[in-house]
Amino acid sequence: MGKRIYNFNAGPAALPLPVLEEIQGELLDFKGSGMSILEVSHRSKWFEDVINEAVERTKRLLGLGDGFEVVFVQGGASMQFAMIPMNLALNGKPVDYINTGTWATKAIKEAKVQGKDVRVIASSEDQGFSCIPEGVRVDGNAAYVHFTSNNTIKGTQWAEFPESGSVPLISDMSSDIMSRPFDPSPFGLIYAGAQKNIGPSGTALVIIRKDMLERVPAGLPAMLKYSTYTEEGSMYNTPACFSIYTINLVLKWLEEKIGGLEKMDRINKEKGSVIYDFIDKSGFYKGTAARDSRSLMNVTFRLPNEDLEKVFVAEATKAGFGGLKGHRSVGGCRASIYNAVGVDAVKALVEFMSEFQKKNG
Amino acid sequence: MGKRIYNFNAGPAALPLPVLEEIQGELLDFKGSGMSILEVSHRSKWFEDVINEAVERTKRLLGLGDGFEVVFVQGGASMQFAMIPMNLALNGKPVDYINTGTWATKAIKEAKVQGKDVRVIASSEDQGFSCIPEGVRVDGNAAYVHFTSNNTIKGTQWAEFPESGSVPLISDMSSDIMSRPFDPSPFGLIYAGAQKNIGPSGTALVIIRKDMLERVPAGLPAMLKYSTYTEEGSMYNTPACFSIYTINLVLKWLEEKIGGLEKMDRINKEKGSVIYDFIDKSGFYKGTAARDSRSLMNVTFRLPNEDLEKVFVAEATKAGFGGLKGHRSVGGCRASIYNAVGVDAVKALVEFMSEFQKKNG
Repeated sequence: MGKRIYNFNAGPAALPLPVLEEIQGELLDFKGSGMSILEVSHRSKWFEDVINEAVERTKRLLGLGDGFEVVFVQGGASMQFAMIPMNLALNGKPVDYINTGTWATKAIKEAKVQGKDVRVIASSEDQGFSCIPEGVRVDGNAAYVHFTSNNTIKGTQWAEFPESGSVPLISDMSSDIMSRPFDPSPFGLIYAGAQKNIGPSGTALVIIRKDMLERVPAGLPAMLKYSTYTEEGSMYNTPACFSIYTINLVLKWLEEKIGGLEKMDRINKEKGSVIYDFIDKSGFYKGTAARDSRSLMNVTFRLPNEDLEKVFVAEATKAGFGGLKGHRSVGGCRASIYNAVGVDAVKALVEFMSEFQKKNG
Repeated sequence: MGKRIYNFNAGPAALPLPVLEEIQGELLDFKGSGMSILEVSHRSKWFEDVINEAVERTKRLLGLGDGFEVVFVQGGASMQFAMIPMNLALNGKPVDYINTGTWATKAIKEAKVQGKDVRVIASSEDQGFSCIPEGVRVDGNAAYVHFTSNNTIKGTQWAEFPESGSVPLISDMSSDIMSRPFDPSPFGLIYAGAQKNIGPSGTALVIIRKDMLERVPAGLPAMLKYSTYTEEGSMYNTPACFSIYTINLVLKWLEEKIGGLEKMDRINKEKGSVIYDFIDKSGFYKGTAARDSRSLMNVTFRLPNEDLEKVFVAEATKAGFGGLKGHRSVGGCRASIYNAVGVDAVKALVEFMSEFQKKNG
C-alpha cells in the first residue's frame, strides 16, 4: 500500500488503523465461516454475535442502564430528523428545539414539515452560530427538547448539556458520540450517524429510553417506527451489516485499546489543547468559535486571508494532511480530530502549521 | 485464510471472489488517496467517481435511456414498500398490487397502513404462492401496478412481466435484478435491496422514470421523497458509501468479467438446468414451485421427510455447502444461486445431492 495520510476529514472520517487491518485480514473468511462478513446471513450466529456485541459495547461504554434500548437505523441523522417528531411528539404539546447551526436547522425544518408545534427556545443564529446559547430555559410543557451536541460546521460543542427537568432531552450526537462520558439519564433519545466517530456511513446509532416507546403512533410505516427496531433487535429487515460490524470493531478498539470514555476524553482534551493553544498563540491563525463553546472534535480556524487559506490547504494536502478545507457553506479551514485521529497526527499538523506560518506569516 | 465455502445464502449472499479481493487489496489505501474507502469524504472526487460509475454501469447494463434516474436509498426494499405509495399514489386512483408471497404481502400492507385505496388484482395465495398468477389483467385506472419479480421464499419468478398498457409497472427486483435483460420502458419504478444480486446490505438501488417524479407530494420529509435523491445525486446526506462502492465493483465484474446481462442470463439458465434437471430426475428431491414459475435465483425443494432435510442441511454444511436451509417461515431446503454463484458451485452441489441420495434414498 501507499503511505497513509493524516486524515482530518469531517465525515466520513479517519478510522483506527487496527480496525481497518482487522477488516482487511478477515475480509475473505470471517471467523472461519468460509464467507466474507459481506456474505454471511444477518440471521446467522456470526452476524448475531456481531450486532449483539455492538449493542453491549455501546451500553457499557455509555453506562446505559436497562432503561435504554440500542438500535441501528439506516438513513443517517437526516432520517432521524424526520423520525423523531413523527414518533415522539405528543398531542397538545410543543416540541422544542435549540438552534446551533446547519444540522439543528435541518432538524427543526423536518419537524415543521410534519406540522408539529415547533418552538425554537434558544438560538445562536444572531452570533452566526459561533457559540452555544447560554442559560437555556426549558419549559416543562414541551414534549421534548432537541439539541445538537457538537456542530461540525461551525466548530462548537456543548460543554455541559442543558438542564431540562422532567422534559426528555433528545440529542444529535453524530459528531461527538463516544468522545466523552456523560450522564444519559435525562435523555429520551440520542442518535448519531456513524461516519464521524464510530464507523463508516450507512447507519445511525439510536439510543432510546424505553418509556419513549409508548409515544410511537400505531399507524406509521414499519420502517419509520422506533418500536419496529426495538422489537426486532434492529432486524425487522436486513440491516446495514457491514456498518454495524465496523462499528463493533471501533467500539472494541475504544474499550480494549483506548480503555473507555474517560481515557478517550483525556486524549481528546490533550489534542484540543495542542491545537487550540498553538492557534491562540500564533497571531496568524484565528479560531472562529467562541472560546467557551469550542469543539474538541472540529477545530475551525481562519488564516489572514482567503488566498492564504487556499495555499495552506493545497500545501497541506501535498504534505499529507487531508480534509482541512472548511465546509463549503462557510469556507475557512477545519481540522476534524475525532477519536481515531491520534495526538501524533495533531502534533504533526501543528508542526506543519507552524512551518507554514514562518514561510507566509 | 481458511477455505471458502460454496455459499447458497438467500441474502446477504455470495459475492464474486475477485470483488472481495479487490476490496481487500485497497482497503487501507483507496486509489492512492492514502485513506480507506471507508474514510474518504462522500464529497471527494474519489467517492464521486465511484457513485457516478455505479450509476452509469446500472444504466448501461439495463439499457436505461435518459428517461430514467438511478439513485441509492437506505433502508432496503422494506423502506421502498413505504416510499412507493407515499410518493407515487394519485388522488382518486387505486394502487394495484399482485400478491406472490411474503414480500409482496408486506408491500401491500405498507400501502394499506397509509390509507391508500389498495386493490390486489391477482394473487397466488390460494396455491400457497407456489406459482406466478396467470393472465393478469391490469385496469387502466390504476396509479401503478406493483409486483415482485422473484420470490425468494417460495422460489418463484416471473418469466414474462405483466402487460400493463399505460399504467406504470413497479417492481421489487431485489432478488433478480441484473440476472437477465428486460425491457425497462413499461416501468415507472424498479427497486432492489442490494444484498442478493448486486452487493452487501445497506442500500437499495432505485430506478425511477422521470415522469414519476411529478407525483412526489411537496410535504413529505426530505429523506422520504424520491425527488430529494434525484436532485442531489443520492447525496442529500451521506449515503451508504461502502455499499455503493461494492455495488460498483460487482457491476464492473458483471460488465467486464461476465460480459453483460445476456451472458449472465445464459449462465443463470445453465445453472438452473443443472439443478432442476437433477431434482426432477432424482425421484428423491422434489421442487416446490410450479414448473413454469420456477425461479432461476432461488431453488426450493423438499426431501422425502423433515428428518432427512435436517440431516441433509447438516451434512451439506459439514461438506462446505452453506445456506441450504429453507426460509424459517416455510421450512424445506433452498439453494440460492444468484449471479455470483458459479456453475461450478451448482455442479458441486448436485454432486453432493446425488451422493446424499445414494446413502439415504
